[in-house]
Amino acid sequence: MSVLNIIKIGGNVIDNPEQLEEFLEKFSALPGRKILVHGGGKIATRIASDMGIEAKMVEGRRITDAAMLDVVTMVYAGLTNKNIVASLQKHNCNAIGLCGADANVIKAIKRPVKEIDYGFVGDILADSIDSLAIKKLLEAEFIPVFSAITHNGSGQLLNTNADTIASSLAVALTKLYEVSLIYCFDKNGVLLDVNDDQSVIETIRAGEFERLKESKTIHDGMIPKLYNAFEAISRGVSNVYIGHASNLHLFQQRKFGTCLIA
Amino acid sequence: MSVLNIIKIGGNVIDNPEQLEEFLEKFSALPGRKILVHGGGKIATRIASDMGIEAKMVEGRRITDAAMLDVVTMVYAGLTNKNIVASLQKHNCNAIGLCGADANVIKAIKRPVKEIDYGFVGDILADSIDSLAIKKLLEAEFIPVFSAITHNGSGQLLNTNADTIASSLAVALTKLYEVSLIYCFDKNGVLLDVNDDQSVIETIRAGEFERLKESKTIHDGMIPKLYNAFEAISRGVSNVYIGHASNLHLFQQRKFGTCLIA
Repeated sequence: MSVLNIIKIGGNVIDNPEQLEEFLEKFSALPGRKILVHGGGKIATRIASDMGIEAKMVEGRRITDAAMLDVVTMVYAGLTNKNIVASLQKHNCNAIGLCGADANVIKAIKRPVKEIDYGFVGDILADSIDSLAIKKLLEAEFIPVFSAITHNGSGQLLNTNADTIASSLAVALTKLYEVSLIYCFDKNGVLLDVNDDQSVIETIRAGEFERLKESKTIHDGMIPKLYNAFEAISRGVSNVYIGHASNLHLFQQRKFGTCLIA
Repeated sequence: MSVLNIIKIGGNVIDNPEQLEEFLEKFSALPGRKILVHGGGKIATRIASDMGIEAKMVEGRRITDAAMLDVVTMVYAGLTNKNIVASLQKHNCNAIGLCGADANVIKAIKRPVKEIDYGFVGDILADSIDSLAIKKLLEAEFIPVFSAITHNGSGQLLNTNADTIASSLAVALTKLYEVSLIYCFDKNGVLLDVNDDQSVIETIRAGEFERLKESKTIHDGMIPKLYNAFEAISRGVSNVYIGHASNLHLFQQRKFGTCLIA
């Protein structure tokens, strides 16, 4: 099977035009089949505030009401996605910007209301991912660039977590490709000491993850990320990398951040 | 050569959710290869106003400054385009939403400053249109849905007239397809009497256009539309239809609005 790299770029990098531009240049230079998934960043919050739309929170959780869904659709799938695509084109990377509704690639259901009604938030239906549609785009030599918006198949767009989009795409595409999943953010990787950027753990095996969690070596905020990464590995993804966006050029030598393997 | 229908839907229909939904259902039902191009509508103006961005006008012409470019990119390529795509998917039409930067399909140059600086407005580079990229999408059985945003190939997005996008695509695709161009708006067609919706002129030949103009039979606002239509025909488009969005289902019987031919 041929290799496919799925790269997720986090919101902090999106919010920094210079860092984003540097990252997009490095992404463009990466050879082979690849997909980019981008988070939202803080632009949506700023634009919502400019429009007089209040960010609704319930028990510390962000709620996507109808007005906020319009804002994130505009910003993620419009402003951010199209500026990323135009920038990639400048670097001769033939990007095609998509949300989950485009080519019906990713369907989701509105998150069921339990204790909290999250509003128009989508939980991805893993079996719905149309890997053949993505294959057609990749074989036409387009580079898909996904924003974190999906749809329910009945005309409703849904705000969806970008990390989950990246890992769901990765798992679905293991049917057709040997998939690596690469999370780019603003840290050098999983750190042994959260205050020491050089203390990157090079490799974590699934079996070691539990031990690192128990010994509280891994920072709290990293745990869900790693949990999802090992989940993806258990479902067929070859490996998951977590590292600094500005180091993406080191990925080819496999010297990029922390590598998670089975 | 196989047939391709390129359908442009105007801003007035975009602004009316019920009319838009009805139109999208009819568009979905249209058999064969097709492309949708959509205008912007007034949502961008409303959102700009909500954000405290003033619509800049010079000598009655709308100017796209940097702030307004962000708004039209958000609204046209994000909010409007993705909601249209999600609605088409509901009707089993496998839409893929694009702007001119996606797959590098339409390049433009920033309109040169003469008497007026229009700001970030794009004039399409006709030779830049990548008809083979569009063919790849059509052959993969996707239905391209274009918003009226292009790029300059150097990372700059540009606000671009949707009528011109539709006619430029139509002309470029005559290399590969037998192309009909269909403008849908909120009138029944070109009217002999602008106050009588039933006075639709069924057919106008290029030779008759001059005569109708001279006799002032054709309403002023219609002249640039017809001029562009005959221009497209002179460059190889088979025919151009102009009619009411809610009559699109009549297109198959060729009973739709006014038909312009060579």
